[in-house]
Amino acid sequence: MKRLAILGSTGSIGQSTLSIVEQFPDRFAVATLAAGRNVDSAFEQAVRWRPQLVSLATEELAGQLAVRLREAGVTEVQVVYGPEGTVLCSTHANADFVVSAIVGVAGLEATHAAILAGKPVGLANKECMVAAGEILTQAARERQVPILPIDSEHNAVHQCLRVGAHREVKTIWLTASGGPFRQLPLEKFEEITPEQALRHPTWVMGRRITVDSATMLNKGLEIIEACRLFDVAPDQVRVTVHPQSTVHSLVEFIDGSILAQISVTDMRLPILYALAYPERPASTLTFDLAALRHLDFEPPDFDRFPCLRLAYQAAELGGAHSIALNAADEVAVEAFLDRKIAFTGIPRTIEKVLASTAEAHPTTISEVLAADRQARQTAHEVVAQAGAHQPSHSRNLI
Amino acid sequence: MKRLAILGSTGSIGQSTLSIVEQFPDRFAVATLAAGRNVDSAFEQAVRWRPQLVSLATEELAGQLAVRLREAGVTEVQVVYGPEGTVLCSTHANADFVVSAIVGVAGLEATHAAILAGKPVGLANKECMVAAGEILTQAARERQVPILPIDSEHNAVHQCLRVGAHREVKTIWLTASGGPFRQLPLEKFEEITPEQALRHPTWVMGRRITVDSATMLNKGLEIIEACRLFDVAPDQVRVTVHPQSTVHSLVEFIDGSILAQISVTDMRLPILYALAYPERPASTLTFDLAALRHLDFEPPDFDRFPCLRLAYQAAELGGAHSIALNAADEVAVEAFLDRKIAFTGIPRTIEKVLASTAEAHPTTISEVLAADRQARQTAHEVVAQAGAHQPSHSRNLI
Repeated sequence: MKRLAILGSTGSIGQSTLSIVEQFPDRFAVATLAAGRNVDSAFEQAVRWRPQLVSLATEELAGQLAVRLREAGVTEVQVVYGPEGTVLCSTHANADFVVSAIVGVAGLEATHAAILAGKPVGLANKECMVAAGEILTQAARERQVPILPIDSEHNAVHQCLRVGAHREVKTIWLTASGGPFRQLPLEKFEEITPEQALRHPTWVMGRRITVDSATMLNKGLEIIEACRLFDVAPDQVRVTVHPQSTVHSLVEFIDGSILAQISVTDMRLPILYALAYPERPASTLTFDLAALRHLDFEPPDFDRFPCLRLAYQAAELGGAHSIALNAADEVAVEAFLDRKIAFTGIPRTIEKVLASTAEAHPTTISEVLAADRQARQTAHEVVAQAGAHQPSHSRNLI
Repeated sequence: MKRLAILGSTGSIGQSTLSIVEQFPDRFAVATLAAGRNVDSAFEQAVRWRPQLVSLATEELAGQLAVRLREAGVTEVQVVYGPEGTVLCSTHANADFVVSAIVGVAGLEATHAAILAGKPVGLANKECMVAAGEILTQAARERQVPILPIDSEHNAVHQCLRVGAHREVKTIWLTASGGPFRQLPLEKFEEITPEQALRHPTWVMGRRITVDSATMLNKGLEIIEACRLFDVAPDQVRVTVHPQSTVHSLVEFIDGSILAQISVTDMRLPILYALAYPERPASTLTFDLAALRHLDFEPPDFDRFPCLRLAYQAAELGGAHSIALNAADEVAVEAFLDRKIAFTGIPRTIEKVLASTAEAHPTTISEVLAADRQARQTAHEVVAQAGAHQPSHSRNLI
């Protein structure tokens, strides 16, 4: 029986994780839940799963939850809050496995603490690996703690890598759906609206990751994540655009064999894989191979998607530049969704922030978080400047 | 350094194996060569590779080779002949690994002897596994001898299987090019000529295997081979038609993940894999994934290709029926190439031979060979009867 700490339990990955626990009650149980700001959802989860510990974002929210649990007669669930609360969840003595699914660098400290506490981690949060990959993987190596990727691409890569030795890996090929603008003429990119960018062809996801898919910055983050997770150089990670999102990624070995992983586009599958590894429990998440007709591939277009080029640049420089790529993008996407900058302003913002970032290699989580704050501030300044110069028409935004 | 016994050294797989030895002189060397009837080629190979032992099909051919080697001043190569000569090659004390690439059941005894002698086998001969799979795999299990498939499909399956446990395998999906008649209207099948059947769209191979690809009986043999090699039931092996022959096969696991192997259509790759296993040496047999555009799949058509149905039937019954399937097909293909029966007469012949085969499970190689002879005789009778009744026009042939 694996008892889980689920960081980000009320989010999409958190809920999918709980549906897996529900489906495999003999394999998995819930130890702790870190839930964020949704008290209603946290209350329901606490009542249903009776974890030892639930953490919410603030003291106030935690107080609300504690009252509701008391009123409902649920006395065995302890409520904590804030970043310290999340760490208490991720390092709890009763947790055997930590699902790290808090979006952004907010999950970083608790994930690092879990690794230091020797707990295997299922990582659904790519920002952690982008911002602090060196720190996390070194800690995991030292403590021989497995980090199992829950991203569908990296999960696919993890599976394919089992077929050879690390020194035999030539190239990791990440597949990309190409997003909604794969075939849009380049000159139309300036006019892309938030509504258009939020329509993803194959996956239903959060707002930032959906926009990141549209700019392909998401794939850029995954390139960096792959470098850190699998200890390969940036030029060993390539992207192939595969609109059907059926092949989740491939690994090419030096002998010429390429292994590919195929499955339904359902996050429960990589979650189940990570939770049960190295076993594969029988699931109903079946891909109908008999009905498969076509798989299409094409090279990514670096002109349409300059974020890919920026990501390779940040992957090469690593450290502060990886942090800046992620932080600048988060600020730029928010500004785009608020109609402060154009769609093409996202890569322009990132490029400016990267250019003003000094090479540095943070060695602690607090240094990482400081570099992250610095990059965000720079990004806000870049966005504000752009807004001050061209306030009205989207064509003239940064 | 692995020293190889190559059974079938002058055939296509044998030559490719030697080209691998040439490319990796630090990894592989030649211990013995079993060569068949081509004295010129055997002579060249003996001079080039200086094996301990060369075997030819007959005493007369062996005599010719011995004379030529003496005249060339090559004294260290011993020449033997016949089935006993092949066994001497496959069990030679200096051989660390046996490549079994003699076509048909002729390679069976020597392959079995190699396993009994504890030598790992690279198996390119699917008839061995079809006719005597139970015997060979049991011997291999008892002696803990690995059998590494050199067929591109089974080699792909072997790779994909490394990603999970045996009990976690749901379905093995063999890809099939579909052969030259994949899209030919059913009513035209009676008129297919040997010339048409010998034109394979993706692989250049021997005559029988090319016709077997056209009838898809080859895929049928591979279904049985997969059942025996990987210890799965016939309904766990399915076929998907994939005209590009880029994906060489797939394995579906019970959790819903499917692993696929992709590579160039070059037999040197599965040979290298088998020889070097579990290592993967760097090779130049690179598949250009960046240039990949489309992969197409479709279900096999059991009406056009009744041989597939017959193969499942033989796989279920096993033993004598698997032997009969292979033997009857070999006779029928020969008769088709000699224009004695129509293309559609091939499955009809097999069906009749299977129907007249009593259920039996040979437990020794000599019992297997006796059942093989019996089935061939029945097949010759079926072909002769068909010929006697309709001697002139191909439409009226069996």
